Amino acid sequence: MALSQAITIIESNLEQDKKLSTELLDKIIHATGKSIRVGITGVPGVGKSSFIEALGRHVTAFGKRLAVLTVDPSSQVTKGSILGDKTRMEELSKNPLAYIRPSASGNALGGVTQTTHDVVLLCEAAGYEIIIIETVGVGQSEINVKSLVDFFLLLMLAGAGDELQGIKKGITEIADAIVITKADGGNISSADAAKATYQQALHLQRVPKSGWLPRVITTSAYAGTGIDEVWRMILAYKELTTANGFFADHRRLQELEWFEDYFKQLLALDLQQSPIVQSEKKKLEALITEQKLSPKHAAANLLKIYHREIKSSED
Amino acid sequence: MALSQAITIIESNLEQDKKLSTELLDKIIHATGKSIRVGITGVPGVGKSSFIEALGRHVTAFGKRLAVLTVDPSSQVTKGSILGDKTRMEELSKNPLAYIRPSASGNALGGVTQTTHDVVLLCEAAGYEIIIIETVGVGQSEINVKSLVDFFLLLMLAGAGDELQGIKKGITEIADAIVITKADGGNISSADAAKATYQQALHLQRVPKSGWLPRVITTSAYAGTGIDEVWRMILAYKELTTANGFFADHRRLQELEWFEDYFKQLLALDLQQSPIVQSEKKKLEALITEQKLSPKHAAANLLKIYHREIKSSED
Repeated sequence: MALSQAITIIESNLEQDKKLSTELLDKIIHATGKSIRVGITGVPGVGKSSFIEALGRHVTAFGKRLAVLTVDPSSQVTKGSILGDKTRMEELSKNPLAYIRPSASGNALGGVTQTTHDVVLLCEAAGYEIIIIETVGVGQSEINVKSLVDFFLLLMLAGAGDELQGIKKGITEIADAIVITKADGGNISSADAAKATYQQALHLQRVPKSGWLPRVITTSAYAGTGIDEVWRMILAYKELTTANGFFADHRRLQELEWFEDYFKQLLALDLQQSPIVQSEKKKLEALITEQKLSPKHAAANLLKIYHREIKSSED
Repeated sequence: MALSQAITIIESNLEQDKKLSTELLDKIIHATGKSIRVGITGVPGVGKSSFIEALGRHVTAFGKRLAVLTVDPSSQVTKGSILGDKTRMEELSKNPLAYIRPSASGNALGGVTQTTHDVVLLCEAAGYEIIIIETVGVGQSEINVKSLVDFFLLLMLAGAGDELQGIKKGITEIADAIVITKADGGNISSADAAKATYQQALHLQRVPKSGWLPRVITTSAYAGTGIDEVWRMILAYKELTTANGFFADHRRLQELEWFEDYFKQLLALDLQQSPIVQSEKKKLEALITEQKLSPKHAAANLLKIYHREIKSSED
């Protein structure tokens, strides 16, 4: 309950909430970082919800606490959410050890993932040991999610030309593991064939800095097979990368990336919120279009205008 | 001669030259824009120099003035230039209607293409009607060059798995035409086959906003075949897009993009050049790493520090 309220504050666009959320984050920051953050992606229909339910059932059986956050890039446009339906994971949502949070739409400060970063910190402070960040496999969002997580799982269906598509998109290059879903009944042989194909493709890639060689696992949420193997793999990853120092290094770099990212966004907002900068920018654009000023000179002028605005502003 | 001197000033990193180059650009900006800017790319060995020589010979025969600029992304690293060898286009370099400028390495303000944008403007003011911007086909550079040109030509060899590679890289998606080189002697039939493959691939793409359907042409710089067809195609593109308004719209958008780009770079430089901002940033990064401050709060602090620095600086 307290977590949900805190997340609502973090996701809020109200000025007073923004101040509150910064204070909140400062208070909990020392208690963050003690989880494994797992990104899960895959095209619609691959069976993300079923897989996460099965994985959640498995880890909560050991008494582990699990948070599932969804990042839905489409929600900004549709104002709804493809993934945000809590009832999709009916069993898990009733589990006292699990916390499911549908995605919020992006705010003025940028995309959904910015908020998600803070939500991850809140979940960690609230004692969740496994944080799953789920996204639909549509283009840029996986790359953003990559910067949020320790381990990146790509869910794939066997057959249906998916193999080629995944490889073409380059998503496989950022995946720490490929999980083939729905490997049950008549699908088992095609799942095994897909596994062989992926293993070959992954084999061709260079060993990443983590020292971790990506694995391919076939699973069935329905039959419950492969789920334990996935969980053991995640633990093996954490063990390996903790031992070789990559885990901590990677986290540190991610935090510094977020810092840079937030700063760039604040700077963009700072420029956007100045009516003088915006109106002068429009004038400069007109001069460029009329070929009265070079883009380079216009840029230098705009920087001067921005400086002047800051100087004349109050502290 | 005057043009070469002007370009040297534009490419200079000296503070006094920067001021001079801004003044120079302002003086000539009204006389720019009256050319067709053609981007040409292709992997090493595809025959870019020979093709450009053949095209140059063709257009200068009509009395047209042609400038060839090379953008070499490798020059920043190697301090040399793969493409910058003037002697590669020996015949063209002796032609009084042609001007060949090897690439300069990138300066502090960003990559090579930033300078190239200004060099294009200088060439236009100097009366060159056709500006060719040549780049090696390695990853990001084509995308940058795309923002410099009206028409984008992709050079390809027939066979050698090139077809698939080009399509995979997505370069074909930004090309307005694919030119198959070395279509002579025993290569003619494979060139024709490659043409059919590319035409099919291009056929599957949506009609771009320009209204221009990408074409595939087979050429031989050696036999002189296809060169006239390429030139007529470029003219047809200009005619079509001038009539439908795309040509002017596209140029305008490109100029505004350059403005944004220059501004972002100036802003980045402004931050880099402030010792206080840089040292405070280091301190904030340490606090983030020690989990004493959230990245979000650190970003807000850095913006305050930047503001304070501007306020305390002299005009």
